[in-house]
Amino acid sequence: MTANAPRTLAGYSLPLSPSGRASMLTPPPWHFSGEVLMVDYRVDPDAAAAFLPDGLDPGADPGAAAAVFAQWQWCSASGAERDHPARNQFGEFLVLLACEFRGRPMARCPFAWVDQPVPMVRGWVQGMPKQFGVVHQSRPALVGVGGPKLAPGGRFTGSLSVFGERVVSASVTVSGLAEHPPPLHTVPLAHTLHFPDWDGGGAPERLVASAVEDVEFSEVWTGPARLEFGAAAREDLGALAPVEVGAGHLFAYGETLLGGTPLVG
Amino acid sequence: MTANAPRTLAGYSLPLSPSGRASMLTPPPWHFSGEVLMVDYRVDPDAAAAFLPDGLDPGADPGAAAAVFAQWQWCSASGAERDHPARNQFGEFLVLLACEFRGRPMARCPFAWVDQPVPMVRGWVQGMPKQFGVVHQSRPALVGVGGPKLAPGGRFTGSLSVFGERVVSASVTVSGLAEHPPPLHTVPLAHTLHFPDWDGGGAPERLVASAVEDVEFSEVWTGPARLEFGAAAREDLGALAPVEVGAGHLFAYGETLLGGTPLVG
Amino acid sequence: MTANAPRTLAGYSLPLSPSGRASMLTPPPWHFSGEVLMVDYRVDPDAAAAFLPDGLDPGADPGAAAAVFAQWQWCSASGAERDHPARNQFGEFLVLLACEFRGRPMARCPFAWVDQPVPMVRGWVQGMPKQFGVVHQSRPALVGVGGPKLAPGGRFTGSLSVFGERVVSASVTVSGLAEHPPPLHTVPLAHTLHFPDWDGGGAPERLVASAVEDVEFSEVWTGPARLEFGAAAREDLGALAPVEVGAGHLFAYGETLLGGTPLVG
Amino acid sequence: MTANAPRTLAGYSLPLSPSGRASMLTPPPWHFSGEVLMVDYRVDPDAAAAFLPDGLDPGADPGAAAAVFAQWQWCSASGAERDHPARNQFGEFLVLLACEFRGRPMARCPFAWVDQPVPMVRGWVQGMPKQFGVVHQSRPALVGVGGPKLAPGGRFTGSLSVFGERVVSASVTVSGLAEHPPPLHTVPLAHTLHFPDWDGGGAPERLVASAVEDVEFSEVWTGPARLEFGAAAREDLGALAPVEVGAGHLFAYGETLLGGTPLVG
Repeated sequence: MTANAPRTLAGYSLPLSPSGRASMLTPPPWHFSGEVLMVDYRVDPDAAAAFLPDGLDPGADPGAAAAVFAQWQWCSASGAERDHPARNQFGEFLVLLACEFRGRPMARCPFAWVDQPVPMVRGWVQGMPKQFGVVHQSRPALVGVGGPKLAPGGRFTGSLSVFGERVVSASVTVSGLAEHPPPLHTVPLAHTLHFPDWDGGGAPERLVASAVEDVEFSEVWTGPARLEFGAAAREDLGALAPVEVGAGHLFAYGETLLGGTPLVG
Repeated sequence: MTANAPRTLAGYSLPLSPSGRASMLTPPPWHFSGEVLMVDYRVDPDAAAAFLPDGLDPGADPGAAAAVFAQWQWCSASGAERDHPARNQFGEFLVLLACEFRGRPMARCPFAWVDQPVPMVRGWVQGMPKQFGVVHQSRPALVGVGGPKLAPGGRFTGSLSVFGERVVSASVTVSGLAEHPPPLHTVPLAHTLHFPDWDGGGAPERLVASAVEDVEFSEVWTGPARLEFGAAAREDLGALAPVEVGAGHLFAYGETLLGGTPLVG
Repeated sequence: MTANAPRTLAGYSLPLSPSGRASMLTPPPWHFSGEVLMVDYRVDPDAAAAFLPDGLDPGADPGAAAAVFAQWQWCSASGAERDHPARNQFGEFLVLLACEFRGRPMARCPFAWVDQPVPMVRGWVQGMPKQFGVVHQSRPALVGVGGPKLAPGGRFTGSLSVFGERVVSASVTVSGLAEHPPPLHTVPLAHTLHFPDWDGGGAPERLVASAVEDVEFSEVWTGPARLEFGAAAREDLGALAPVEVGAGHLFAYGETLLGGTPLVG
Repeated sequence: MTANAPRTLAGYSLPLSPSGRASMLTPPPWHFSGEVLMVDYRVDPDAAAAFLPDGLDPGADPGAAAAVFAQWQWCSASGAERDHPARNQFGEFLVLLACEFRGRPMARCPFAWVDQPVPMVRGWVQGMPKQFGVVHQSRPALVGVGGPKLAPGGRFTGSLSVFGERVVSASVTVSGLAEHPPPLHTVPLAHTLHFPDWDGGGAPERLVASAVEDVEFSEVWTGPARLEFGAAAREDLGALAPVEVGAGHLFAYGETLLGGTPLVG
């Protein structure tokens, strides 16, 4: 290195380093395989609308919402993370609100929690508001009776705790196979890129859609569901508590997340 | 309550309470459903023999051992815990040594770690030396490519960390189906009941076999394996590090644990 | 090793091993240094009496109780653990009930939670019903205003969560120095040794007192307090919720725990 | 709400919400009170220079570095977080490299880890590359012998583990009081604001200095130190391993962090 050459630090994300390999995040694409417990529900339509930024409309079914628990494994393009279960697994809970962008059905995620730091920061890169929570979720028991069977009568439960308080609890008792995946899990997510302005030079907010490919669903089990927001679901989150609970769904899901596409009104 | 009646505190375990329902542990039977990653390996036969208490012999295949990762769900007789995934799931890693009691093939577990407190204490009740560790283990990806597929070429990894240091790491690349479950997972476990003497009135050590029923195996995938003990596997544990690594196995397993039976020499 | 010599496995606790050094627990004495947040309170005297085993009486002040949060560092005789903060620190919350054994003032601990596995198991060795919980507690801020000052007006908070639900929350606003340590922190603890019977050969329950020496208190700050049991304090624990809240105390405390002494009626 | 009014979502950070109170981060100022264990050390000067972005120079003492463990409490302007120890405490480890901006002494932080999510994301807002790790650090024992005394001969230890592997371990044996705080803890930090470009509209990197006020030091204990990077300190981090270890320091520190100031070359 000579003193006169401009020094460059590399990396997709912080930490930047000489080689770029110290970056906490790998660049997309990111591949995901997950097991999902999802409950359709309805919120007060005005409450839902109040969570939609300019550019998104409530659409054809105002107040349609979903509560989604998932246990994920992920890897980046190299696939290297697949050999590191301490790094490539995480649990997630998120709320989805039905909406439209210029007539195109989409979903808005007002709240999300994950239990690992890498997907949390990766959420912020996308404009997805992932916070940190403790997520638990039943797995299908393949043999034995220690857990629920993925068969009629099997009851699966998800729970979210944040800072030591129970925020959400849900369960689904599967009764049969659905013909289609739940609609709110098939539409693109519309996020708002928003970075706190630290030095007076911050970028403006931008509405973006997540671009995914290689979407894959297993068969979808469905049945009656329970969904409860606890006392710790305060203020804005509390406004999205269920006014009606619909069907629940159990399925596996895979996708590749490619990047973000501006939604220009 | 009258002052003269003897007061009784109830419970299968501490905490004892008026109703007995405060007990940390439910009484057996306990039902278990787990997903297992197991690696056959060999240790120095003298090292293995040094871990067998009086009454157990090395048997027909001295030095035969196994490293076992498992992700469990459990419930007690009522099944109530199945609805509480925050309570009924845990990860485990344990070492098994082949041995015999009066010519009967058994397994001795010199070391075990779990990542939840209830199964840890439940281990001590059985004489199973469960300590606290952080266990990670790949799950089969049903769709998508975020994790390994349970199909030829799928590579599954397990890791154990204790007090922030990596102790064990293993992986299995499944290549096909085995005809039989791995033998060391089919024999009874022989534990030593041992309670530190706190008040001068302690009970003597006793050798016991765990009694199980309703054992159930899924199909067993098998293939070449890797097994490494880290620098943090010190002293006695280090003596059980692999001198040779055999085949690896992936399977689901269910059992009901009933209690302990004295092994009387 | 010859085949005819009886094999011996050594250790104060499980895991037993050839050298004995694999034992999860070191033998007593154990030295403790802690920072304590304690709230005096009163429970329904009948509820308290129902938690006293035969041999213990409510004594002169039935219903006197305390809620105690502590952040501990510990070491065994060698002092070696002092160099391993990942091993020698833990947080604790416990309830104390005033009682007497043959006219001698003592304290009964019906419930306790710690956030590390070694002190949890060590509790069971003593008959102290330690379960696993997440404990948080304010520390005095020596400089800056990020935390409370140990000076008049400084408010200190403790909280306990178990399985993702808030169980207890308390705060003390210190106003001045007390002349004496809080009495319930100065009397011996009376525990019940109780081991679930696994093989039909279990030992009977025994009432024991913890023997300590080198007890040391810092100055004791005191002031008004708040104490709340959450909705997750169910059934037996709920019966010990406060009917009246007294003064709170902040102090540092050191002791050496030597072993247990039978309390023979 | 009328359909024609532009909808606004508020918040300093994600999650944005109607009230703005759902934001994960409060806006600055943020007040900090911490207990610090710091070890002066030296790295290879070329390795240090390779971590300095354009605009920063190695300065008068190339290769001067420090390893800093801290246990923090924090609150925002309202002080509300002081009553929530589950939210306002975190542990941190960071590396500091001596550098200069246009002749002004500063410090560059190439790597940092914290054990709570809020300070992690808050770091990214500032350009500080905070990742997630498990940090342990001795506290002074005020009474008893369970932990080290802040007195000559007292030995304090810090450790960092990431993804279950030990990365850094350090200890300081205090021998006396220093006359001045350690220089690398008294200069401003120069960070690089860097946000991965998600949608093709990302902001350029910017060099910023953190602006702080109300800096306060306790007395500073000092003495010989030990500092070790483990095998898990790979690649770029490994390049900053110590080539020489200097003195260690124990002190309390307070500051208020106000925001970022562009460093314009």
